Amino acid sequence: MDKKNIVLTGDRPTGKLHLGHYIGSLKNRIELQKSYDQYIMIADTQALTDYFENPERISESIFEVVSDYLAVGIDPDLSTIFIQSQVSALPELMMYYMNLVTVSRLERNPTVKTELAQKDFATSVPAGFLCYPISQAADITAFKAEIVPVGEDQLPLIEQTNEVVRKFNRLYNTDCLKEAKAHLSKTSRLVGIDGKAKASKSLNNAIFLSDSPEIIKQKVFSMFTDPNHIKISDPGRVEGNVVFQYLDAFHEDKNEVEDLKLQYSKGGLGDTTIKSLLNDCLQKLLQPIREKRAAIDKKYLLDICIEGTKKAQKSANRTLNEVKNAIGINFFEKFSS
Amino acid sequence: MDKKNIVLTGDRPTGKLHLGHYIGSLKNRIELQKSYDQYIMIADTQALTDYFENPERISESIFEVVSDYLAVGIDPDLSTIFIQSQVSALPELMMYYMNLVTVSRLERNPTVKTELAQKDFATSVPAGFLCYPISQAADITAFKAEIVPVGEDQLPLIEQTNEVVRKFNRLYNTDCLKEAKAHLSKTSRLVGIDGKAKASKSLNNAIFLSDSPEIIKQKVFSMFTDPNHIKISDPGRVEGNVVFQYLDAFHEDKNEVEDLKLQYSKGGLGDTTIKSLLNDCLQKLLQPIREKRAAIDKKYLLDICIEGTKKAQKSANRTLNEVKNAIGINFFEKFSS
Repeated sequence: MDKKNIVLTGDRPTGKLHLGHYIGSLKNRIELQKSYDQYIMIADTQALTDYFENPERISESIFEVVSDYLAVGIDPDLSTIFIQSQVSALPELMMYYMNLVTVSRLERNPTVKTELAQKDFATSVPAGFLCYPISQAADITAFKAEIVPVGEDQLPLIEQTNEVVRKFNRLYNTDCLKEAKAHLSKTSRLVGIDGKAKASKSLNNAIFLSDSPEIIKQKVFSMFTDPNHIKISDPGRVEGNVVFQYLDAFHEDKNEVEDLKLQYSKGGLGDTTIKSLLNDCLQKLLQPIREKRAAIDKKYLLDICIEGTKKAQKSANRTLNEVKNAIGINFFEKFSS
Repeated sequence: MDKKNIVLTGDRPTGKLHLGHYIGSLKNRIELQKSYDQYIMIADTQALTDYFENPERISESIFEVVSDYLAVGIDPDLSTIFIQSQVSALPELMMYYMNLVTVSRLERNPTVKTELAQKDFATSVPAGFLCYPISQAADITAFKAEIVPVGEDQLPLIEQTNEVVRKFNRLYNTDCLKEAKAHLSKTSRLVGIDGKAKASKSLNNAIFLSDSPEIIKQKVFSMFTDPNHIKISDPGRVEGNVVFQYLDAFHEDKNEVEDLKLQYSKGGLGDTTIKSLLNDCLQKLLQPIREKRAAIDKKYLLDICIEGTKKAQKSANRTLNEVKNAIGINFFEKFSS
């Protein structure tokens, strides 16, 4: 039997997952788990680099996120779901890699630079935040992941990981660490219902996988369309119209969506009609997810996390062992043999 | 029975220990172990922040250092000797503390600044080096050390640790971390036999605890004295004279040393005489240490390290558990109860 290639992916647990996650990563993972050995990391310690002052947001979200995974069809028999903070080999690997990455290299990382500009750290950047690309290098290499699904903005993080891999292997004369390839997401980010920014929990403009039918309908009917499309007979703008962006992303019949766009542009198609259509489509998509989610047993959820985390621990410990052997500091093993 | 206060001390394993270590810290530890619960850390991962390109220097030195400990009278029944790299809770604690310390705070640390100036990192400081004060905070707090013997130049590191302690306890509403007090060393650093700098392995100007009688004699007789003291009858300088500095540090009869200094200053006391006296004194000190060192069984040495490390792991894991509970990310414990 061929050994499957390894994928590492995951989420920072900062809230329940929404349609943006579904279209941007979850659907992809449901496919990837069929052909790859997929590790899905609940990146709680990474989330703490941002939210260390609000740890309850992280701890409250963990099992919500795992529930979302199971509800959409991530299969724990095919994917290893694990909790980052419970894999002690990860900070150990990070510590060894920290010697191989300079502070100025971290400060030059384009992803870090962009994120720093967005945050209000001002001049006081926590060391944990600056070093999180090293933490990611530990995550990726610990599981010998060869494929890491990312958005284009995260490519510098994969490059940083591969720099660590090459430097470590050369310095300690080993090949125990593997370079990873980015698996670029095909879909662009889903816009929020306000049409202003991408859907996110903090902007309160997202439809969550666990939203009730009433809330879904309410959110769909409050979507930003074309403010100049007053009467049904008026021609309407499709571009920037959130309803059409969602129909593009979620409606199964692409031809029907194109016909509707044409009709809307010419005039004669009301917002209520397209919103009703989108509402039907999203209700159909989310009903089974919500029902599956509600039926998940708490004990089962915990078992999935424990089993996945145990497997992840074993895998990461194996790599840590190789890393310590390569550096030459696996003392007890060396001397007890 | 009163619970004893905890001391944390240790060495970076970068070579065998020498008389500078003996007078500067080992003698003190032999006293401390009688009244305190003393943890002695072989700081191999900390040493790697400097020597990551020469890890063999670290790995070769570990058991040499532990042999030196046992030879001088550190008692494994009273002191817990352990190897830093084998205590996985330490990098875990470090990772959580990294969120609480800013990069600019680290760059302002006087000890780090001085050390950076001495090294040839130029502008490319490794992240591991910049963050080593956070690693020390993890070491100190992991064992709830209340007393940390340090030189004056290391006081900023204790201050950094206590900042982490106060910030962590306040932020996560806990008292699980303890502030530490510096225990300032009374003796000043021992000068090298060349009289130019402090005794150190890298400057090749130190007398090692394991040196043979011939080497000790050779080193004593090559010591820097007073280059203008040509004839025995000439007056000689005591200040800057290495032989007298060593007699001050190691000769048991302080009055005799004062008499010799007086005689040397006036003239009439030859270098050969004072060197012979110092040689006798050091041979007497080092012979039993060397013999005890040679008699140490390899298996016993390893057992001491394993036992000490197990105790250290247990102690550090207990603290890590409290830390994770305080942050609120001890998931499995929380949900399985």
